[in-house]
Amino acid sequence: MHIDKCKISSIDKINWERDIPFGKYFSDHILYCEYKNDNWNEPIIKPFSHFSFSPITLVFHYGQAIFEGMKAFKDKEKHVFLFRPLENFHRLNISAKRLEMPTIPYNIFFEGLINLLKLDKNWIPMKYGYSLYIRPFVIATDGPLSAKPSSNYMFLVICTPVNNYYSRPLKVKIEQKYSRSSNGGIGFIKAAGNYAASFFPTQKAKEEGYDQILWTDSATHSIIEESGTMNVFFYIKNCLITAPADDKILNGITRQSIIDIAKINNIKVEERYLTVEELKYYLKKQLVNEIFGSGTAVIINPFKLISIQNMNYILPSKKKIISYFFKKYILDIQHNVSNDPYNWRFQIT
Amino acid sequence: MHIDKCKISSIDKINWERDIPFGKYFSDHILYCEYKNDNWNEPIIKPFSHFSFSPITLVFHYGQAIFEGMKAFKDKEKHVFLFRPLENFHRLNISAKRLEMPTIPYNIFFEGLINLLKLDKNWIPMKYGYSLYIRPFVIATDGPLSAKPSSNYMFLVICTPVNNYYSRPLKVKIEQKYSRSSNGGIGFIKAAGNYAASFFPTQKAKEEGYDQILWTDSATHSIIEESGTMNVFFYIKNCLITAPADDKILNGITRQSIIDIAKINNIKVEERYLTVEELKYYLKKQLVNEIFGSGTAVIINPFKLISIQNMNYILPSKKKIISYFFKKYILDIQHNVSNDPYNWRFQIT
Repeated sequence: MHIDKCKISSIDKINWERDIPFGKYFSDHILYCEYKNDNWNEPIIKPFSHFSFSPITLVFHYGQAIFEGMKAFKDKEKHVFLFRPLENFHRLNISAKRLEMPTIPYNIFFEGLINLLKLDKNWIPMKYGYSLYIRPFVIATDGPLSAKPSSNYMFLVICTPVNNYYSRPLKVKIEQKYSRSSNGGIGFIKAAGNYAASFFPTQKAKEEGYDQILWTDSATHSIIEESGTMNVFFYIKNCLITAPADDKILNGITRQSIIDIAKINNIKVEERYLTVEELKYYLKKQLVNEIFGSGTAVIINPFKLISIQNMNYILPSKKKIISYFFKKYILDIQHNVSNDPYNWRFQIT
Repeated sequence: MHIDKCKISSIDKINWERDIPFGKYFSDHILYCEYKNDNWNEPIIKPFSHFSFSPITLVFHYGQAIFEGMKAFKDKEKHVFLFRPLENFHRLNISAKRLEMPTIPYNIFFEGLINLLKLDKNWIPMKYGYSLYIRPFVIATDGPLSAKPSSNYMFLVICTPVNNYYSRPLKVKIEQKYSRSSNGGIGFIKAAGNYAASFFPTQKAKEEGYDQILWTDSATHSIIEESGTMNVFFYIKNCLITAPADDKILNGITRQSIIDIAKINNIKVEERYLTVEELKYYLKKQLVNEIFGSGTAVIINPFKLISIQNMNYILPSKKKIISYFFKKYILDIQHNVSNDPYNWRFQIT
């Protein structure tokens, strides 16, 4: 691996005491690796900088682009950990296969990541709940312009520090006109195109006063799916319900962790589809204790209001017991505060 | 508009007598225009060259990318024409709205295009059926990295010469597992992400010996949609049938032109969904005269075989009367050989 270190770190521009906007500041280095002639070249670490791209760069035209979201944490002894990185590695390659892109070799992914994090370890905050968000992504590069899979790709990893921003309880609208995914589609992968498609319906919901959309199935718009950037859990009559990880649902790593934690803690979990009518019934009967979203960035984000066909249902405002239980459970493992019964921590230094 | 002319044209590297691979050679200049601070800047024409992009360029992460395909033609007097460019302009902005991107102003699109084509007019071949393929596209540019619509965009136009390549009759597989689009989705727009999603299923079909996929609806996989890069027409019992232009179908400009030409020539047209079972019935009864795809690049591409649930149906091999009628009709208008009753020609010089 070729490593070209930066001369002067830009870390001093971060004021760790203030709120750090997500994805505004990036660590000193970037990892990248080019795929040409059916092979991945030697990975390179270089100072964070621009790249020169042709206007024929195929990701601009046909959208072959996939990504992952991961986090690196520090414990009190400044040891550095990743959280379940193998899951991200596997999912990145599942995404690659579905978009007819080459898979990333294990060594390039992990050696690259480990070297990058060792170089930029000062960018990983020590405070509980703070972390360095890691964004691996793969894009199609050179043409020709024809509408077929590219022959050339680039794998990149960039890192941005994030603090433990308060996850404000969300007002969420159940969307029954627009769709995020479909049977036989690409809803289960982290494809760039899935996100672009969600912006317009989400913007409409924001104009109506909501924070997020909760998608329903494209075929009937009667079955609840996920929230686009988060999986969603319903805690109803002491049972956690979340959509099954089929080809329409992104199988979130936080989602998987919640299911595992629930099982070991004797919290009943059902991986099944909840219908809009069923949810309406439970909301009217006041049997819904909590609803929350889960994802790498936010870990857990409780909902405070849910809107179904222009009817707003306020969720119980008492302490979000289940939401906070899972958030603390996961953060304690991530920061090496608690035991790690599932081997989810992956130590870097 | 700022115009920076290239010093030496690279047109001499084109051997017009040989087959020119689609999208390999590009004309001397490129048009681009940046969107920043809620405004489109002054458009710029510069020699075809690379751009410097940050790794946070948002099209890499969240897929806001749309495009159009157009063609410029020459007649025998070297006059230059576009074909229905207003339709491309309108559709580009329909795509922009659906992906929560800023629309392109009329003047930037048309003045830019006209200046670019005047500069690069030598790249427009004179031969009948040859043309300069024009690719306008818009991409999200600078971050921050958060998963929301970008604040910054770039509109670009590049041009690549194409010859009248023989459109080999296609072997097409009806796809009943994977899906291209859904109700409430983005199938009706030219979003980059739609193409990436189609590559894996298409590659599988190619490995089975087919050239293309004919998509069915994601909800039931029983209704025929389009072919991903082409709309599809079925000529059955002296009636042309093509899928209606709803939110799952790209409303192709060649598709619209065929419908208009059919109507004025007393060819019956039905814009309606054909089911797989219906098609199977007609194929078995040998009532299907022709099936063809339509699109800007190919104009018309006849099918020679259609595969339904592993059963191959050979289409009549006799002269593709309807296919060639439409292809010649459109080419004659494009090259100013025939009258232009619908005002489809748009003269540049």
